Amino acid sequence: MAKKYVFGVDVGGTTVKIGYFDLDGNLIDKWEIITRTENGGENIIPDIAGSIMVKMRQSDIDIKEVAGVGMGVPGPVTEDGTVLVAVNLGWNKFNPNEQLSELLGVPVKTGNDANVAALGEQWKGGGQGYSNIVAVTLGTGVGGGVIVNGKIVAGSNGAGGEIGHMHLEDEETEECGCHGYGCLEQYASATGIVRLAKKKLADSSKESSLRDIEISAKAIWDAVKEKDELAMEVAEIYGKYLGKGLAITAAVVNPDIFVIGGGVSKAGTVLIDYMQPYFEKYAFQGTKNARFVLATLGNDAGIYGAARMMLE
Amino acid sequence: MAKKYVFGVDVGGTTVKIGYFDLDGNLIDKWEIITRTENGGENIIPDIAGSIMVKMRQSDIDIKEVAGVGMGVPGPVTEDGTVLVAVNLGWNKFNPNEQLSELLGVPVKTGNDANVAALGEQWKGGGQGYSNIVAVTLGTGVGGGVIVNGKIVAGSNGAGGEIGHMHLEDEETEECGCHGYGCLEQYASATGIVRLAKKKLADSSKESSLRDIEISAKAIWDAVKEKDELAMEVAEIYGKYLGKGLAITAAVVNPDIFVIGGGVSKAGTVLIDYMQPYFEKYAFQGTKNARFVLATLGNDAGIYGAARMMLE
Repeated sequence: MAKKYVFGVDVGGTTVKIGYFDLDGNLIDKWEIITRTENGGENIIPDIAGSIMVKMRQSDIDIKEVAGVGMGVPGPVTEDGTVLVAVNLGWNKFNPNEQLSELLGVPVKTGNDANVAALGEQWKGGGQGYSNIVAVTLGTGVGGGVIVNGKIVAGSNGAGGEIGHMHLEDEETEECGCHGYGCLEQYASATGIVRLAKKKLADSSKESSLRDIEISAKAIWDAVKEKDELAMEVAEIYGKYLGKGLAITAAVVNPDIFVIGGGVSKAGTVLIDYMQPYFEKYAFQGTKNARFVLATLGNDAGIYGAARMMLE
Repeated sequence: MAKKYVFGVDVGGTTVKIGYFDLDGNLIDKWEIITRTENGGENIIPDIAGSIMVKMRQSDIDIKEVAGVGMGVPGPVTEDGTVLVAVNLGWNKFNPNEQLSELLGVPVKTGNDANVAALGEQWKGGGQGYSNIVAVTLGTGVGGGVIVNGKIVAGSNGAGGEIGHMHLEDEETEECGCHGYGCLEQYASATGIVRLAKKKLADSSKESSLRDIEISAKAIWDAVKEKDELAMEVAEIYGKYLGKGLAITAAVVNPDIFVIGGGVSKAGTVLIDYMQPYFEKYAFQGTKNARFVLATLGNDAGIYGAARMMLE
């Protein structure tokens, strides 16, 4: 029986997103289940298997028509699919491929969620048509994924694309979540830009609409769009760190395109407008051809990329 | 007739190195010819073809036994072998594969020389046994090559692995050869360490054996080995920049191993000793497993890597 479908699974700490696609990458259906993290996350894979089997029966899909299941998980994953650690799932040195493959009877591939989402954006999102991309997710933290010739760069230890933890600032005195100091994430994440804004508000006596509200990444970018001077100064600092980080990234892998996603990127192209001059300033001549676009798949990037990884 | 041999060619601005190998990567013979750069370097490819043909006749090799020719050139090369520019050869937007392939009647592949040398070190040099390596060449400049899953990361524009032009220092006032400011190369190259030493000599009144001699990278490292305090301070600054640059590189591609070559690396492991504490300080936790070794192929890395590229 010819293969017709591929499943993509994006395992998060709260919910598991599941979707299935035809082999051209058209999303046919998607849904979510709860992530049961108790007991070292031992139910997660059986729950996924059960949910996929129920969907197949409901949709009259024969297992022989399924090319396989791709899966993204929140933690470092080595080339062979071993999840070194996924704190939010309770997993430790666990290769989910065997268990899920045995339960379903199809091949399974697993990768890091940020890397898998990058592959999704390369396949069907903002990076479509390019084979060398760097995806940057500006959310609570800063995630990244490097795709070279259409393939994920997982790296030696599953830490490929961890550009959020690139060291950028020697003078930083606050510790990053990774226990480092001066990581890109400390400036370019949602938390990072709020921190930059609070510092600026404390150091400056300038009037600002930000003084009267609870500060969030969204509030800062909204104020920037309304030409609030202090917010614009914050955006300038933000753009400098992000532009420098991406320029440095370009010196290593020279991507065709950067695809910018995550909550902070909802600010839209204004974010790119503040970042790009610094990218230009700091980037090596031969890498300045890189384009910048916003991610387009949103929360579905993970299931798209997971499905794509399985089809590789 | 079964394929038995592969040729590797390393085109430099002064000489072209040529070697041939069996298919297991054993070097059988190597030699050099002059690089004739006049008239836009139009003789370079015919000269290489002629030299290879003479060698084949002398060694009784039938062209049907030759798997192909790999070639490294000093300039950015795209995935399809187009040399965007090679100033030292007089080439501009030129794909040498067709010409050489037509002259010899075998397949030809071309890559950037630093990337190709990295592949050589991964195949048969310091990085043997590892599939994800970053090679760093500390010479007059700082070159680099990134190998992921045994393949060169050429990037969008042939500028993959250009870690020498990674921006590291906002305060730098001197211009780099690339017209940027604060590139890794400005500190970690032979010229860079001499510059650091001259600054330190001017700013300090400390006694030093370096005050009485013409300063070179070699002289500085020799003084370090003799516990010259000022030279050790220079080595510390050198180690900080190099360690930081490699830590940042690791956040992007998470290599198994860094292979350090080039003239400055002749100082030996002392260089790694000064760099590694800063790598540890600045590297993301998940990338700290990276090993550091010295390159072992010297000037032959290019012909090894060129041959390997052809066999991929």
